[in-house]
Formats: sequence, C-alpha cells, structure tokens
Amino acid sequence: MEFSETVRRRRMVRNYLPDPVPADVLDRVLDRARRAPSAGFTQAQSFVAVTGADRRAEIARLAHEDEYVAAGFDPWLSLAPVHVIICTSEAAYRARYSEPDKAGAADAQDWPVPYWYVDAGASLMLLLLAAVDEGLAAGFAGSHSLAGIQELLGIPPEVMPIGLVTLGYPAPDRRSGSLARGWKPIEGVVHRERW
Amino acid sequence: MEFSETVRRRRMVRNYLPDPVPADVLDRVLDRARRAPSAGFTQAQSFVAVTGADRRAEIARLAHEDEYVAAGFDPWLSLAPVHVIICTSEAAYRARYSEPDKAGAADAQDWPVPYWYVDAGASLMLLLLAAVDEGLAAGFAGSHSLAGIQELLGIPPEVMPIGLVTLGYPAPDRRSGSLARGWKPIEGVVHRERW
Repeated sequence: MEFSETVRRRRMVRNYLPDPVPADVLDRVLDRARRAPSAGFTQAQSFVAVTGADRRAEIARLAHEDEYVAAGFDPWLSLAPVHVIICTSEAAYRARYSEPDKAGAADAQDWPVPYWYVDAGASLMLLLLAAVDEGLAAGFAGSHSLAGIQELLGIPPEVMPIGLVTLGYPAPDRRSGSLARGWKPIEGVVHRERW
Repeated sequence: MEFSETVRRRRMVRNYLPDPVPADVLDRVLDRARRAPSAGFTQAQSFVAVTGADRRAEIARLAHEDEYVAAGFDPWLSLAPVHVIICTSEAAYRARYSEPDKAGAADAQDWPVPYWYVDAGASLMLLLLAAVDEGLAAGFAGSHSLAGIQELLGIPPEVMPIGLVTLGYPAPDRRSGSLARGWKPIEGVVHRERW
C-alpha cells in the first residue's frame, strides 16, 4: 500500500472480527515494526506477541477491559486475535552508553529526554502503520495494569512494557469520544521559523 | 512509495546536498507527520520547521555540531536545508486528563509511562518515513542543548523539545559507528506468547 494511504487509513480500532491473523501476516508486521531507530542503535524496543485465547483473556482482565465494556465499548481486547505488548528498557540504554564508543562524552548518561520512551513510540507508530499496510486494524491500550501483564508474560524487571497493541480484522466499533475534538488545524501544531 | 519501501529505505543521514526542499514537499511531510496518535487525542506534539540559514547555523552551534565534525562527520546540521524541532508537552496531557470526560477515572493522572514522550516518538517515526516517501533523507540529533534551542525559537516553557530532525536531499555521508552493531536477530526482539 502507498505510504500516504497507510497514514490516511490508520486509526485506533476497538472491535474485531473473530478471524485469526495468518502467521505470515503477523510475521511481516512484526518484522517491519522492529525497524524503528534507537539512540546509539541500542535496539532495546521489544515485542511480546500473544495469540493464545486464554492468555489474551487474562491480559484483557488485567487491562480492565470491563471498564471499556461498562463505558459502552465492545470487548475489544478479548476479541482481538493478537495482542502485542511493546516494551523498552532504560537499563539497556544506560548499558549501551557505557560502552567504549559512547562513554567518552561527559554527558553520555545525562539525557534531557528519556529516549527509551521516545524510541518505543517510534516502534508503536511503525507497528500501527505496518498493520494497516497488511489490511489489519490496530488499537492501543496504554495499560494501567502493566505490572500484572509483566508478571503474566515473564517480562524481566529491567524491561518496561509501554502498552498493548491489538491486531485483527476490523469490525464496526464505537469510536473514542476523544475524536469529537477533531484534529487541530495545522497552524496549531506546525510553527514556521520560530514558535 | 510503497509503505514497505519507506521502511526499508529509512536510515539516519548525516550529510546533505545544498539544494533547498521545495515548500510543497515540506508542507506534505509536515502534514503527514502531524497524524500520529496521542493519548486522549491530546495532540500535544508540535513542530518548529526552520529553513533560514542564519537560524540553522545557530541551531547547529547550540547542538554542538563542532563535536560531530571533530569526530569526522560532515557539518550535517548546518548543511541540512530544513531543521524540524519536535516538541511535546506533559502539561497539555495533564490538562487534557483534567477535562470532564477523562477526570472521572481515579488514576487518570497516574501514568505508569510518560505517554507525552511515547507519542512524540510516534511523531518522529512518521516524520522520518514521510521524508523518505517524498524522496528526502532525514537525520536525528537528540540534542543536549535543548534549552538553548528552546530560547532561540521562543518555545514556551511548558513545551519540551525532544530533538532535531534534519531534512534534505542526501549526500554521501559517514555512517554512525553504532551501525557496526548490526540489527539484532528477530528472536532477540520479538517474543512469542511470553518472554
């Protein structure tokens, strides 16, 4: 699909058909998603892809799907045939910037911005677009139950899940009320030459 | 361009031809880049696009281009005909989650992850891909001089620059030494069913 079309079509989807995602489609999506950049080429972004129904049901419980359903949404976490937990690791960045080629800079560990989260966001964007490119829909739950999911999936303590991406074939869904805000006009987000 | 091709071609470029980027090309890149998702549709990601040579030279100075040049790289910040400063704002997310439709949740302000940085990373990824789609190259300087750039460009104190993207037509460049690490094998970054 044309890049511009993937951007145009991408939106958060909160309902899915029961159809599974073929293994080769999921493999391509994950292979694209791992191509995001990272500071120092640390490559500390990681993914846990879950397709088993029991484990997805447990993730949905930990991520408080009941609150979405109480608010009138479909049980989109349980229904989505694939969950992808995106993770990052501050520890990995600190280890990378302790290596000989990086440790020389006096401020090598003094980041004004936590780039492990920025780079995880780049991976998230790539995963969302890669899903669209393969004809899938995707959603995102920035979970407040990350600790529970971490334990369930055996994610090491130095690795931080940043949220859960649902993947599947889209069904008609109730859209987020936040969308009523509309996109800001471009002048509100793009400044020219100075703020 | 096909989405998969934009992913395949994208890499950080640290040298540019002097050719300016046509205004319509830059406009399309920025219009795509602003389509990243954001928690609560906060849309607090913002961009300052700088093309003026004097201001770019000052940004290059603040971003310590001299250190890159001392390390054998080209003066890629000065040479790039466009600088785009990507910004985010924690304050905007806190304001958004104080609005009536969000304030109800007991943990509405208790984020386990600073999503303002994650969402800024999504914008960064989209900007990098949009540049490739338009035949441009892009680089990224995660600046240690963000405060200086903030003052230079009049960026308000509640807005946080997360780094500088260079845009332009690519020239042969010295690649980052970090690339010698190579991409991790997919088994190192994608886990199946559990870690």
